[in-house]
Amino acid sequence: MDSNWSRREIYKILEVTRGKKSIASIIFNAILLTTISLNTFAIILHSVKSLRHDFDVFFSDFEYFSVVFFTIEYFVRLWVCVENEKYQHPVWGRLRYIFSAGALVDLLAIMPFYLSNFTSDTGLIRILRLFRIFRLFKFSRYVHALKVIESVFREKREELILSFVFFLFTLLISSSTMYYIENSAQPKVFSSIPATLWWGVTTITSVGYGDTYPITPLGKLLGGFVAVAGVAMFALPTGIFVSGFNEHIKIYKNEDKNMKFCPHCGEKLH
Amino acid sequence: MDSNWSRREIYKILEVTRGKKSIASIIFNAILLTTISLNTFAIILHSVKSLRHDFDVFFSDFEYFSVVFFTIEYFVRLWVCVENEKYQHPVWGRLRYIFSAGALVDLLAIMPFYLSNFTSDTGLIRILRLFRIFRLFKFSRYVHALKVIESVFREKREELILSFVFFLFTLLISSSTMYYIENSAQPKVFSSIPATLWWGVTTITSVGYGDTYPITPLGKLLGGFVAVAGVAMFALPTGIFVSGFNEHIKIYKNEDKNMKFCPHCGEKLH
Amino acid sequence: MDSNWSRREIYKILEVTRGKKSIASIIFNAILLTTISLNTFAIILHSVKSLRHDFDVFFSDFEYFSVVFFTIEYFVRLWVCVENEKYQHPVWGRLRYIFSAGALVDLLAIMPFYLSNFTSDTGLIRILRLFRIFRLFKFSRYVHALKVIESVFREKREELILSFVFFLFTLLISSSTMYYIENSAQPKVFSSIPATLWWGVTTITSVGYGDTYPITPLGKLLGGFVAVAGVAMFALPTGIFVSGFNEHIKIYKNEDKNMKFCPHCGEKLH
Amino acid sequence: MDSNWSRREIYKILEVTRGKKSIASIIFNAILLTTISLNTFAIILHSVKSLRHDFDVFFSDFEYFSVVFFTIEYFVRLWVCVENEKYQHPVWGRLRYIFSAGALVDLLAIMPFYLSNFTSDTGLIRILRLFRIFRLFKFSRYVHALKVIESVFREKREELILSFVFFLFTLLISSSTMYYIENSAQPKVFSSIPATLWWGVTTITSVGYGDTYPITPLGKLLGGFVAVAGVAMFALPTGIFVSGFNEHIKIYKNEDKNMKFCPHCGEKLH
Repeated sequence: MDSNWSRREIYKILEVTRGKKSIASIIFNAILLTTISLNTFAIILHSVKSLRHDFDVFFSDFEYFSVVFFTIEYFVRLWVCVENEKYQHPVWGRLRYIFSAGALVDLLAIMPFYLSNFTSDTGLIRILRLFRIFRLFKFSRYVHALKVIESVFREKREELILSFVFFLFTLLISSSTMYYIENSAQPKVFSSIPATLWWGVTTITSVGYGDTYPITPLGKLLGGFVAVAGVAMFALPTGIFVSGFNEHIKIYKNEDKNMKFCPHCGEKLH
Repeated sequence: MDSNWSRREIYKILEVTRGKKSIASIIFNAILLTTISLNTFAIILHSVKSLRHDFDVFFSDFEYFSVVFFTIEYFVRLWVCVENEKYQHPVWGRLRYIFSAGALVDLLAIMPFYLSNFTSDTGLIRILRLFRIFRLFKFSRYVHALKVIESVFREKREELILSFVFFLFTLLISSSTMYYIENSAQPKVFSSIPATLWWGVTTITSVGYGDTYPITPLGKLLGGFVAVAGVAMFALPTGIFVSGFNEHIKIYKNEDKNMKFCPHCGEKLH
Repeated sequence: MDSNWSRREIYKILEVTRGKKSIASIIFNAILLTTISLNTFAIILHSVKSLRHDFDVFFSDFEYFSVVFFTIEYFVRLWVCVENEKYQHPVWGRLRYIFSAGALVDLLAIMPFYLSNFTSDTGLIRILRLFRIFRLFKFSRYVHALKVIESVFREKREELILSFVFFLFTLLISSSTMYYIENSAQPKVFSSIPATLWWGVTTITSVGYGDTYPITPLGKLLGGFVAVAGVAMFALPTGIFVSGFNEHIKIYKNEDKNMKFCPHCGEKLH
Repeated sequence: MDSNWSRREIYKILEVTRGKKSIASIIFNAILLTTISLNTFAIILHSVKSLRHDFDVFFSDFEYFSVVFFTIEYFVRLWVCVENEKYQHPVWGRLRYIFSAGALVDLLAIMPFYLSNFTSDTGLIRILRLFRIFRLFKFSRYVHALKVIESVFREKREELILSFVFFLFTLLISSSTMYYIENSAQPKVFSSIPATLWWGVTTITSVGYGDTYPITPLGKLLGGFVAVAGVAMFALPTGIFVSGFNEHIKIYKNEDKNMKFCPHCGEKLH
């Protein structure tokens, strides 16, 4: 009984709800947000050689503190998750919680640190280090808007796949043709179709770094058409995202407003 | 009778319909899709010198297998096509089938191989090799969305031509003027109007490789205006595609759904 | 009387109307369109040194033919223009016709040739040569869509000016600030604010040639913000053109269709 | 009484209203607009070394004139501001006026000049010089459209923040990963995550200067995905600004027109 009461209280503190929040919850979430933010800054600044040298102890101390903090957070969340209706069962509920998106993100934030103690392979340690940046995903708990993006991607699935197929066709056909045209003139730059795909992507997306570009008249003609086709590649996803986000932002805004709907078709009444 | 029965069965296996599919049809289409995909990968990887050397026999064997497979597929389709109402007549129907878009794509996938045996001209063989990438178009049978793109291009013909005319005018006028401005300062880069057109395309489409750009103050002034005009060039096709695709995706989605409409406001009932 | 009759007949041949055309009119306009197209090609190809050398006589003959043809066309149009209701008066009507957009374009196509005979200044001759490309504008008589573009620019005047003011503010503020930041690090590239404006335009329009870019951390920070602001610069005119063109294409398409309109507000009845 | 009468008259001259303007007001505002424009030109041209040398006295005289003119304007506006209902109180009204956006912009236009007399630190003087470009903001009094932009930013706050968060996530994750991939191949270019962020911004916004780009196959693969993701980054703000501006331009246009609505369909009557 006592344990349950404190568990429920802790659950309320950890849980991010859209209603009123207790002071304890506000303080805890402020600390958590600050820690994630500082982690992001620490990871970015740690990559700067001079800073890494001068503040080595500070960075390593902060890393220890973060991992301890996130580890405690992870296990406390695992303990109190049964307060959520979705994970009521003490064993199976907790197991299902472990494989929920939120818990996996929390695990991803701490696992690399522990795994790096089991290996001395510098290559692997480098990769595990890289994974620390995914601590950024811990923010997703607070960014409600990410759900909007997720929904848009799910609903506009077909259209986005169509766009991507259209992009892939244009990319493959144009890059293969460009390879056959430019290869003899620039055997180093357009050495193979995979190498030419890099030209294709940077041209279609209109990035145009300038490391690879056609120099033969025929190659420039094809390159011009691909650049123009790239404009169309911008148009399609723009239309899809525009309509998708507009629909969702409307729904999201109306959630709080007790809107009335037409009883016949569910359309909003104006 | 017996021949007709087996022909009908084979037609049902080859034909891609939107209704229920038999297991034989699913298996055949899976094999065909896999073969096309592997062909695409093989063509791309074959262009990498080191892979070409090491797996020469493998690539050449796979090419033989593909051509045999696609050739058999081509002739079987030609045999069974009379089961389709559009190509009923055994002679004229088959002739008309040969010139249908689908059959031409199938022919394009195998012809280059046979033609390359009739020539020893390396230049021609190179071009025939290039045509193998068009085997990718065999996918189009499965990508229903390509029909949407086709329809959009047909319906928005006028608007797209208007955009293209607007683009061509801007390109020709700006490139010719830029040639007269920059030619004396950069006689190698802006050597002629055709050479300057390359600058024009990469600027209007905002690719900007950086191989050609104005260096005189007047040239930079014109270049700035062209870059700004390029923004407008993005706006027009975006609008056209957005409205075109939106209309079609709606139609495409509603096809299966027998939608009803609200009698009060004419809105669709979900 | 006889003169008037032939004048009316010639007017009908020259005039481009949307109704039925006589065979003589179709032939004349085909010849005119071909001559303008060939002129465009000739001007472009003449700028290529090798072609200029080899086909010198051909180019110069074609130029003489074009100027003679366009000169006759100009004076015949001037003679018959009084058949148009707008230019009925033999003197004042013709004077007003001379200053109409169409007649000025026609004059611009031939004047440079005659003016170049009065000067031996190579610089001036070069500029007069350049003006030949504006013969392209003679096409505008046939491109009805250009009127749509003209109308959109006139109607969306305010919004386009707003966009341009927004662009100019961003350009001036960001370039001036960038000059103060980068000048000491790259005194040659960011030598003055006018020089930095070139960086500003290529960044905001996302062209990014790569001839000028910030190298100091502060300059890169500002450059990043300007690049992101450039995305917004794309958004505004896109919206304006999209809505503007959509409205006009609707009107243009409905012209032939006898649509009905609401008697109260002039809105189309669905 | 006399003082009040002249104060009211001067207020009417300075104040920009949308109704009828007196001749004195038109003249004063023309002079002010001209002075601001000339200031902008002077600041831009002064940065050109050769012009700075040759017209040194002219630039410095014009600067003195501008500061005197803007200073007088500032104090006259401060004197007459009490005629505005919002700032009626002679002391508190004026104090509130001083901290209004318009007055701060006016102060920013003159303060740097006076402050630069109190220091001999060339670095600080350089920064104070830079601030002169912000005199451009004095235009904002005349650009009513800036209010539209302001409103759009305020109303579409949530959506713009969502876009920016989405952009930041993509930027941070992709740049950190790219740093780990490319650092060993290009230790100078991709020296740290902050340095790689510059690559990220120029790629996502499709600027692509070409000073930093991946060279390893894995880096090119990631770079390709980031370039494609950049297309989506264009789509979102485009949609937001399009809808935002469209709504506001309608409101802005209707303000003067006392529009009526069709009783049948609720559409506006023109």
